[in-house]
Amino acid sequence: MNAFEKLMAFQHQTEALAQIAGRLGWDQETVMPRGAADQRAEEFAAIEAVLHARRTDPHVRDWLAEVDDAALDPVGRAQIRHIRRDVERAARVPEALASQIARLTSRAQGLWAEARANDDFAAFAPILEQVVALKREEGAAIAQSARAGAVYDALLDGFEPGTSADDLERMFAAMRPRLVALRAACLERPAPDGLSGQFDAPAQMRLARRLAETFGYDTMRGRLDKAVHPFSAGSGADVRITTRTDPDDPFNCLYSTIHEVGHGCYEQAIDPAYALTPLGQGASMGVHESQSRIYENQLGRSRAFAGWLFDRMRESFGDLGIHDADAFYRTVNRLRQGYIRTEADEVQYNLHIMMRFDLERALIAGDLAVADLEAAWNDRFEADFGFAVDKPSNGCLQDVHWSVGLFGYFPTYALGNVYAGGLHQAMRVALPDLDADLAEGRLARATEWLRDRVQRHGGLHEPSQLIEAAVGAPISEAPLLDYLEQKFGAIYML
Amino acid sequence: MNAFEKLMAFQHQTEALAQIAGRLGWDQETVMPRGAADQRAEEFAAIEAVLHARRTDPHVRDWLAEVDDAALDPVGRAQIRHIRRDVERAARVPEALASQIARLTSRAQGLWAEARANDDFAAFAPILEQVVALKREEGAAIAQSARAGAVYDALLDGFEPGTSADDLERMFAAMRPRLVALRAACLERPAPDGLSGQFDAPAQMRLARRLAETFGYDTMRGRLDKAVHPFSAGSGADVRITTRTDPDDPFNCLYSTIHEVGHGCYEQAIDPAYALTPLGQGASMGVHESQSRIYENQLGRSRAFAGWLFDRMRESFGDLGIHDADAFYRTVNRLRQGYIRTEADEVQYNLHIMMRFDLERALIAGDLAVADLEAAWNDRFEADFGFAVDKPSNGCLQDVHWSVGLFGYFPTYALGNVYAGGLHQAMRVALPDLDADLAEGRLARATEWLRDRVQRHGGLHEPSQLIEAAVGAPISEAPLLDYLEQKFGAIYML
Repeated sequence: MNAFEKLMAFQHQTEALAQIAGRLGWDQETVMPRGAADQRAEEFAAIEAVLHARRTDPHVRDWLAEVDDAALDPVGRAQIRHIRRDVERAARVPEALASQIARLTSRAQGLWAEARANDDFAAFAPILEQVVALKREEGAAIAQSARAGAVYDALLDGFEPGTSADDLERMFAAMRPRLVALRAACLERPAPDGLSGQFDAPAQMRLARRLAETFGYDTMRGRLDKAVHPFSAGSGADVRITTRTDPDDPFNCLYSTIHEVGHGCYEQAIDPAYALTPLGQGASMGVHESQSRIYENQLGRSRAFAGWLFDRMRESFGDLGIHDADAFYRTVNRLRQGYIRTEADEVQYNLHIMMRFDLERALIAGDLAVADLEAAWNDRFEADFGFAVDKPSNGCLQDVHWSVGLFGYFPTYALGNVYAGGLHQAMRVALPDLDADLAEGRLARATEWLRDRVQRHGGLHEPSQLIEAAVGAPISEAPLLDYLEQKFGAIYML
Repeated sequence: MNAFEKLMAFQHQTEALAQIAGRLGWDQETVMPRGAADQRAEEFAAIEAVLHARRTDPHVRDWLAEVDDAALDPVGRAQIRHIRRDVERAARVPEALASQIARLTSRAQGLWAEARANDDFAAFAPILEQVVALKREEGAAIAQSARAGAVYDALLDGFEPGTSADDLERMFAAMRPRLVALRAACLERPAPDGLSGQFDAPAQMRLARRLAETFGYDTMRGRLDKAVHPFSAGSGADVRITTRTDPDDPFNCLYSTIHEVGHGCYEQAIDPAYALTPLGQGASMGVHESQSRIYENQLGRSRAFAGWLFDRMRESFGDLGIHDADAFYRTVNRLRQGYIRTEADEVQYNLHIMMRFDLERALIAGDLAVADLEAAWNDRFEADFGFAVDKPSNGCLQDVHWSVGLFGYFPTYALGNVYAGGLHQAMRVALPDLDADLAEGRLARATEWLRDRVQRHGGLHEPSQLIEAAVGAPISEAPLLDYLEQKFGAIYML
């Protein structure tokens, strides 16, 4: 075997172990006995130690040094690009710092959950300050620079390779005023009707399974279960998704399912030749989110598809208290005043992200002290949303991300929406009569278009190149904003 | 850290990884998507490679050489005993032979399944011959001797440390004529009634869950699911069991559940101080089987408990076509003429084992050629069971064990029954009024006695020492035989 083949054989085993670790997470959230939590933590620590040792194995550096990139085909070069990036990132972070972060964030997550339950930001602030300090150190080590912008970009690069905070700042600056205005205009108008009726959990799950199938999720290579928080786990031939049921709100279950189906279908569609290699996963967090969002929103919340879903829901639940498909469409798209990011609609969601992006950059730069985070959050929230935060669990304690050190992750959600906006515009050009399909619950042409343009490539291309090639235009927030203003302008008769 | 502490820290991580590998097996048999089988094979190979590398890690040998056994307490010495034994066994088997066996048995299992489906022993014989040859080589390497008895004992020692084929041969020689005679006498008498009625799967599973709880299985640290073959997986705080349902035969589900509950409760009862150490598992296959068997048979099929179960079954399924608890007791204990080991009753089960023990020793010794196995099997079966084997799937192709190289495993099932016989006799002396409890479905005193005498010790003692201390007498087949002759003599009015 030459150095490249040795690398790939080693990586194949590492990827298989990573799949096992991911499935351990699935198991924990779905079927693990409650009393097994402590033992599970030991099991996670053991497999993470194995994975860490493999990622920093000196053989990998030696093989990488030996590989002749010029002799490789484009797939081989892309494999090496991923391995090299991971190795370089890992090598730059001192072992002691990495394990300090692992230990601290494990503790911080527990304190965050407690602080959120008690609505007590002060109880969480001291450890968050330590997390911020260590993540700043980690970012500086990866960036090999202490410049604030470089530090944040290094963290962001771990989730969205090739994107900088400056790019995002420009994009978000264009989005924010239009979204704030759109939000305010919609909420001044009369609210669409809500649902009435009985929504028992087994019927919700039956319809969720039908939706998963409708959107092309392959249950021969995956499964749908219930969990407290919906998620998708795994790659290749074993991609599992979860959803949840709320007796008062079937949309929570159904649209969470479509969202996770978007993630799951992406992983299932990746070229099987890339299985258990660095290319055998979605290209980035942002690209992943673009798929889940376009399934959930641009397709799942379209007028055409809503008509089909309206009929299916009446078959499942009887009278919904909604008189026709147009009213149903307005219901699945209605804006509500709310504090919580994960419950936000298409218009407001990105406003939640942008404030987190600005606040976390300020924290990492040292321009915002953790002690001042709650006040800064509440000020910004009121500025964008027009009403005051009532308690920290509805404010800066609502998300787990910062407690576990995920700085640079939030903006990929908004970036995913932007990618989805561009992809949707291009898809509608390519498939001008798509609504006729959607109205009959036929998603195949839409999902095949996405499979062909985006999903099958896995990690072959850099995220921005992948999206630009799929869309046929530079990445821009304009298609998303145009779509939102047009859609919600019509719904709210602005 | 001194050498002992380093060893234990290393071992802790290895045990955690072994738990993960075990859970991967559970996942495969219960929830894995069907299309994930190939990927799962890669995942298994990856984690097995990690475990193998740890088991043969040169550091372990160095630490073992440094450990001062005399400075350790009895628990520490027992830990070292386990680690040393595993390391020595692993070190004696050349790497090339180990991986040759792994590859060959993986292939042989597939060919066995095909041959069984086609009732074609000749299609399986050539690869079984290779498996026998390699296992003989492996046994000789471990024994450091080519003497037939030593080779087989080395294989047996992997499942039941401290037991020799000579011990078993003496024991089985005493058992066989009495069991053959008891079997023949029972089958000459009129057969007890069978069940009639409807046994829907959800009701079977509800009763199975109630039985699991009744026998003390802790679902906070475990779970019960359905699988094609009942099994138990995991140790410590995450011990899962499975059962199956047959619409015509609820006893299959219920007694499989009690059997697996015996295995599961054993693992759950081990001193938590031994968790994720070499002591944190059952002492041997035989001791494990003694617990599952005593739960299933001596307790679960006792007259007193059968009365309680009869009432529960009528609550669940209505009329069973059986007029009273005495008749029900005869039904759950009835002997039937059959080919299949896993379906055999208490009297006939050990006869199935003994013939496998004799045949596999002859194979390993080279006294029996694989080409002659089918004929030898059929002759022996007719001699002990009094009727002829009709086809290989009911004969020498019925069990998976030999195809995957499990030579030396079968006798531990019979040894488990012998241990259970001794334990049961001692338990009845210690708890003379136990039947009053069993008649009301109260298992606590029986299971606590087993927990205290056997289960909590995990791997602290050698299997035979553990059982002898629990029973208070040398290991003997006499209590089991006396129990069987008395119980079935009464049931069949011999």
